[in-house]
Amino acid sequence: MSTSRYIRANGIDIHFLHDGSGPPLVLLHGWPEFCVVWESVISALRDRFEIFAPDLRGFGDTTKPYAGPTEEMTSQVLADDLGAFLDAVAVNRPVGLVSHDVGAIVAQVFARRWPERLGGLFFFNCPHPGIGSRWIAPDHVPEVWYQTFNCLPCSAAMVGASRDTCRLYIGHILRHWAADEHAFDKDLERFVDNFMKPGNLQGGFNWYLGNRAARRAVWTGHIPDIPPIEIRTRVYWGEHDPVLKAEWMDRLPETFSNLHASVAEEVGHFVHYEAPQRAARAIAEFFEPGRAPV
Amino acid sequence: MSTSRYIRANGIDIHFLHDGSGPPLVLLHGWPEFCVVWESVISALRDRFEIFAPDLRGFGDTTKPYAGPTEEMTSQVLADDLGAFLDAVAVNRPVGLVSHDVGAIVAQVFARRWPERLGGLFFFNCPHPGIGSRWIAPDHVPEVWYQTFNCLPCSAAMVGASRDTCRLYIGHILRHWAADEHAFDKDLERFVDNFMKPGNLQGGFNWYLGNRAARRAVWTGHIPDIPPIEIRTRVYWGEHDPVLKAEWMDRLPETFSNLHASVAEEVGHFVHYEAPQRAARAIAEFFEPGRAPV
Repeated sequence: MSTSRYIRANGIDIHFLHDGSGPPLVLLHGWPEFCVVWESVISALRDRFEIFAPDLRGFGDTTKPYAGPTEEMTSQVLADDLGAFLDAVAVNRPVGLVSHDVGAIVAQVFARRWPERLGGLFFFNCPHPGIGSRWIAPDHVPEVWYQTFNCLPCSAAMVGASRDTCRLYIGHILRHWAADEHAFDKDLERFVDNFMKPGNLQGGFNWYLGNRAARRAVWTGHIPDIPPIEIRTRVYWGEHDPVLKAEWMDRLPETFSNLHASVAEEVGHFVHYEAPQRAARAIAEFFEPGRAPV
Repeated sequence: MSTSRYIRANGIDIHFLHDGSGPPLVLLHGWPEFCVVWESVISALRDRFEIFAPDLRGFGDTTKPYAGPTEEMTSQVLADDLGAFLDAVAVNRPVGLVSHDVGAIVAQVFARRWPERLGGLFFFNCPHPGIGSRWIAPDHVPEVWYQTFNCLPCSAAMVGASRDTCRLYIGHILRHWAADEHAFDKDLERFVDNFMKPGNLQGGFNWYLGNRAARRAVWTGHIPDIPPIEIRTRVYWGEHDPVLKAEWMDRLPETFSNLHASVAEEVGHFVHYEAPQRAARAIAEFFEPGRAPV
């Protein structure tokens, strides 16, 4: 059983799950998620790694420092949080950084700023600049509506009007993005519990506000003229993700120069939740090659 | 005061406002609207025209013939409704057809099918094929999210959870699309009353489901290889409409070969509601040129 802990870092109280012993591993969730989404992966890896699974700023039980909608919660700020978090928990060795979705954007910022703090980058379904204007191709526009909806001034009040409205919205996203629409059934009420906590819906939506300008820059197809990330990188991408399509792996090498990428078959957006054993095995093999599989 | 009437046509009971005497004029609303949005225009024109302002199928007090989400409520079906409606009210003379938004799409289908039944076409902000892929340009994608949201299986339940959630959603749309965010303040509760009637939210959303394939075809930029509509046409387009941009008037001539178009200054998506006197004057001048202004 993981320990639920809090630590002060970068001016906020960061909640995280802490478990296991061994080389340090940090797990960064996406939206609409929180640290609990990593539970099964943590169980599978606790004998091999010391694991830290924080709730990102605005999410879960970590501080929601903004009273309402704000554009201040950028990937830069979330990367700052991660650096301060590692200082606070006194992880001074290079960590293995595992992430997807929102967390994957934060991990890329972190990797460019502090490559020396990383032992490797592991991504599940990973937003990257090479997706470019494919985000808004005619057949994909129907998948990105939530990115705008989450930025509306009325969304948190509407979704958070009751547990029922919250369940309708968060439940729809989880069902639609998972390969098996029943994948989250057993935990759906825990997600509703989480997002009905004061500030949690707006906390997640603030990510979409904070990342809005960067997101729209990607839509134009403009790729920043910066060198690729050279850290050893592994990408394991769910085959049936409707919002982050596996075919978009084609341009990962422009962003990651030391890359091994493969498809996680028969799962969708949430590889770590939909197929935690395969996810854990891939993580262990990448960070401790040569050891027996988990 | 207009009379609120019902008439059986095309298998449904069509509700409409009926007022005035003179040459017949039909007013077709958009989403999220219903016949009441024409009240001030009707008041200004009742001395000159016999006016029929129906609630479209799925909207207002007209029948919602589908139990839930359906793709059957296409522009073809709504044009059939209009033809049957004119038969039922025994309007055999050519009518002046005034429309915008959803109604404007229906009017284009009607005009191609039964040009002989029309004395002229008057459009406020008018979706037309020449908008093409500009619907999903990077700076416009944030404006079209509702077109997907309205097609979700969870939307009617979420928006209709309470008067509050309904007011949040419909109110957001009305505020965002009008040039003055307070334009609808005095009637907002009437809109909430309307959309909280059983079936009315899904009824409107079914338009987006029924029109989905056609909408996506426009997004690809593919323009159907059909001749333009030759009926005498007037377009009066609100300057500040964020979702149907006035700059998109540039390609109206591809769809309407006998066109006079101009911009309605300082108003947005709802010219007929935001500036009813100017709207009524433009309608009267178009259908009865030479008479004194209203």
